[in-house]
Amino acid sequence: MRQSKLFGRTLREAPAEAQTPGHRLMLRAAIARPLAAGLYTWLPLGFRVQKKVEQIIREEQDRIGAQEMEMPVLTPAETWKQTGRWDALEPITFRTKDHNGREFMVSYTHEEFVHLHAMQEIQSYKQLPQIVYHFQSKGRDEARPRAGLLRVREFVMKDAYSFDADQAGLEKSYAAEFGAYERTFQRMGLDAISVESDTGAMGGDVAHEFQVLTEVGEDRIAVCSNCDYRANLEKATRSVRRDGFEALDKAPEPSEIRTPGATSIEALQALLKRPPEAFLKTVLLTDARGTVVAVVLPGDREVNEAKLRKILGTSEVKFANDGQFAAAGGVPGFVGPVGLKARVLIDSSLDRRAFIAGANKKDTHLQNVVIGRDFRGEEVDVHDVREGDHCPRCKTGTLTIKRGVEVGNIFAYGTYYSDKMRATFVAEDGTQKPFVGGSYGIGVGRAVQTIIETHHDEKGIVWPPQVAPYHAHVLALPVNDADVRATAESLVAELEKRGIEVLYDDRDETAGVKFADADLIGIPLRVTVSKRNLKENLAELKLRSATDAEMVALAGGADRIADIVGSWPR
Amino acid sequence: MRQSKLFGRTLREAPAEAQTPGHRLMLRAAIARPLAAGLYTWLPLGFRVQKKVEQIIREEQDRIGAQEMEMPVLTPAETWKQTGRWDALEPITFRTKDHNGREFMVSYTHEEFVHLHAMQEIQSYKQLPQIVYHFQSKGRDEARPRAGLLRVREFVMKDAYSFDADQAGLEKSYAAEFGAYERTFQRMGLDAISVESDTGAMGGDVAHEFQVLTEVGEDRIAVCSNCDYRANLEKATRSVRRDGFEALDKAPEPSEIRTPGATSIEALQALLKRPPEAFLKTVLLTDARGTVVAVVLPGDREVNEAKLRKILGTSEVKFANDGQFAAAGGVPGFVGPVGLKARVLIDSSLDRRAFIAGANKKDTHLQNVVIGRDFRGEEVDVHDVREGDHCPRCKTGTLTIKRGVEVGNIFAYGTYYSDKMRATFVAEDGTQKPFVGGSYGIGVGRAVQTIIETHHDEKGIVWPPQVAPYHAHVLALPVNDADVRATAESLVAELEKRGIEVLYDDRDETAGVKFADADLIGIPLRVTVSKRNLKENLAELKLRSATDAEMVALAGGADRIADIVGSWPR
Repeated sequence: MRQSKLFGRTLREAPAEAQTPGHRLMLRAAIARPLAAGLYTWLPLGFRVQKKVEQIIREEQDRIGAQEMEMPVLTPAETWKQTGRWDALEPITFRTKDHNGREFMVSYTHEEFVHLHAMQEIQSYKQLPQIVYHFQSKGRDEARPRAGLLRVREFVMKDAYSFDADQAGLEKSYAAEFGAYERTFQRMGLDAISVESDTGAMGGDVAHEFQVLTEVGEDRIAVCSNCDYRANLEKATRSVRRDGFEALDKAPEPSEIRTPGATSIEALQALLKRPPEAFLKTVLLTDARGTVVAVVLPGDREVNEAKLRKILGTSEVKFANDGQFAAAGGVPGFVGPVGLKARVLIDSSLDRRAFIAGANKKDTHLQNVVIGRDFRGEEVDVHDVREGDHCPRCKTGTLTIKRGVEVGNIFAYGTYYSDKMRATFVAEDGTQKPFVGGSYGIGVGRAVQTIIETHHDEKGIVWPPQVAPYHAHVLALPVNDADVRATAESLVAELEKRGIEVLYDDRDETAGVKFADADLIGIPLRVTVSKRNLKENLAELKLRSATDAEMVALAGGADRIADIVGSWPR
Repeated sequence: MRQSKLFGRTLREAPAEAQTPGHRLMLRAAIARPLAAGLYTWLPLGFRVQKKVEQIIREEQDRIGAQEMEMPVLTPAETWKQTGRWDALEPITFRTKDHNGREFMVSYTHEEFVHLHAMQEIQSYKQLPQIVYHFQSKGRDEARPRAGLLRVREFVMKDAYSFDADQAGLEKSYAAEFGAYERTFQRMGLDAISVESDTGAMGGDVAHEFQVLTEVGEDRIAVCSNCDYRANLEKATRSVRRDGFEALDKAPEPSEIRTPGATSIEALQALLKRPPEAFLKTVLLTDARGTVVAVVLPGDREVNEAKLRKILGTSEVKFANDGQFAAAGGVPGFVGPVGLKARVLIDSSLDRRAFIAGANKKDTHLQNVVIGRDFRGEEVDVHDVREGDHCPRCKTGTLTIKRGVEVGNIFAYGTYYSDKMRATFVAEDGTQKPFVGGSYGIGVGRAVQTIIETHHDEKGIVWPPQVAPYHAHVLALPVNDADVRATAESLVAELEKRGIEVLYDDRDETAGVKFADADLIGIPLRVTVSKRNLKENLAELKLRSATDAEMVALAGGADRIADIVGSWPR
């Protein structure tokens, strides 16, 4: 490819709105361009990277026997309504209507539709297990598209769907996809770790995310210092040490204490000279049906919204309003669980000891409040884990919190969809049984930018060879020297004949511009044909990832380059 | 691939709604399945065909130096509004809004957006010419999706866009794409002819369609019996012979004749005993702004709506209502051009002789009406060509009308978009000049079904080898015979090792079912390993396109199959 005709212009400076190193380099190197907020076009260089990433994903899906297919972007409302997701997904999706008023969703994911197909195509247990997958554009009406390709409003996702006859089969399929994901990310140069995750809008209980740890990520991951426990904070738990801060049997009956104006844990600490964990924090919220819910947790802990959403079965957590406070008998700033008229959720990290809690009376708290004696409720895990907490698995390690980009996720949802859609097959015993399923996603664009986020230096991108847009970048210096040009062009032709992908910088630009662009675009091997070296019949080879260059005889140049390219992982 | 696990079940009968042979076979052979009217999923077999068709298109685009990229499905309204197509395309497109009220179109085509990119990426004439292309899903809100994949509401289109510095450059790019299209269709087994076509919603003047002539097509193509003239009826013209039916100089002044109740050409013929071409047909319509337009044409000709839409610059032709008739001074059933208060369009096939025309007076016509003497208007080509008309190119051949499926179209729109969008580059003389462009589309799904429409027999599909889902279909008969199974499986493994794509029918089904499915699915080479032939160490090879089978020694079977597959076009 002649760079003079490349559709895609490198930029000296990134636009001011670019938020992360990868975002800046992606724009500067002409990988992709925005058409509107969160809507991107792959320019030819980026398109090539994207295709290689896609091909790695495809090969690893095919390796585990998954079959490629393709479902449409526009998906009819009726089917979404069968599972209740037409309404549940409203805030985050794009919808359209045809001229007869029939409604469609710009596909968000395809669980419902692949189940429709499975019902038609799979009749008997003999046809199981099966995994199908496709690459298809998804729409997400993100309120805040962010950091280039990391959070967008349209992206191509590889989504795979497994169908099994029973839970044991699902576990095998899930393990096969888990392995495929590990190989997939490793092959594209991403150091992704698997992390326990919340199932969110997908249903079911078991889910993992593949996270690449980097400061630009927006997910928070708890990682154990001792064992292999790793979990998204939306899901992470901790080992609670029951310290017996005040022994339960010593606690007298609750009694009021005056706490004028102390409407926060911080104010209470200051007033009463007690540590935050001496207090109960009580948060009043409403669930999807408008019922008032009180969440009670230690004074030093925050509510984890994702955990709470899942407990409440809602897509949005709302704080109680004044009327709801009054109806529940709570006083803002002084709310507590004793005598409250609300559904009470008690965080599982609380132990049975005496706490100080709001008295539901202005400027007043209660001391010696004991769970189970003075109030009751449902025990739930609803608090945020934080740095230094004890690992819930090994109990000895402590947790650190890292930032990560979620590059893949896998869900074992079981019969969540097949039950709702009556998607069944004839089992070995002759009865109709629901499919037991899972779904498995990778966002292609996010993977590409995450590769950039984790493979660059101050000069530009440093592509892992297996996903680089080209193998070699041949620079002619200067291109208007006839010998240089002829030598460079015959080298390019020789390399291309050997199947080596070459970007040939035939632009009439200075050496400075060409070297800077080569470093910015980040093709793994730079090959310089210059007037000076030509005198000695040499060309210069330099790996983008190395600091030193190597001089090779022009006569054997193509062989040497082919050796280097051949040594790279595929 | 083991057929027992193939996601996609063959059907004995096609659903009743299937309209064409290709539609029926596409459904029966599990190539694709509808999710809703006009929305299809490619099942794995069809997906493989589709990918091969896509790859042929890609290779021929790459061969002419086009660069692949990818623009999004959701496209912002602002850009469409710059060219006026936001409103013009409303009746045929899907729209959506984000939660902030910003509007988007599910992409219909990408001229506007590729121009946006060209403005950013191409600064100088030195970077021209360029052609870029992508494969992307398009939405079309077709009122009547039809015949499976022939007319759908979502489909993947390869659309390419050329950018040149001037008209001569555009003509070169257009010719390059024209050649690429000829090779593309030929390679995928389609006998496509190029046809002059209307530019429709694309703008510009020059356009060609590639049409595959088949009875199931909905386009009508005029084909000359003598020369290479071929045109879509939306565009086709004819050579008009001026027969001097009644010589002009003999015509006296117009005079009224009584024609009670004769409101049609047929009724006038019966009443006055004159042939239809003795009459003027006058049709009253309104243009986009509501102006009344009278179209005058010979009594034996029909108005061509596509031509008229283009003349009026509207996407929909509307007949005049009673109020508009009255305002123009016309009387329904007796309308004529003489004295009419309307914009008059005179069809170019009319010659200067005396006609009988409506008198704009109930039950009355005028005789001896002469164009230019008794009324004036703009000369336009607005009539339908029909079977037997004379060719406008060679003048000697006659036209026949054939049905065709449009599998590709190319448009040379010039500066139609760049003028409206101020998309310019710095020309050699230092001035800003608008890009001179063209666009070039192929619908992948329609191509696949057109291949089926033109490659089948009564038993099923007969895939051209270069787009077949697999090369060989290995049948084990019966599969539960251990020797048969072992032999078949070792043959499959040996073939796959050689890169031959194999569908292996390992189902526990009868020979009748397996042979019928093999004929239905239409893989080019059927290989049968049966108990009977195994006794003689033979396997049976049969080409789907042939009637006779060939027996080969099992020992050399893989070699023979590799020879056959190797002899096929790629």
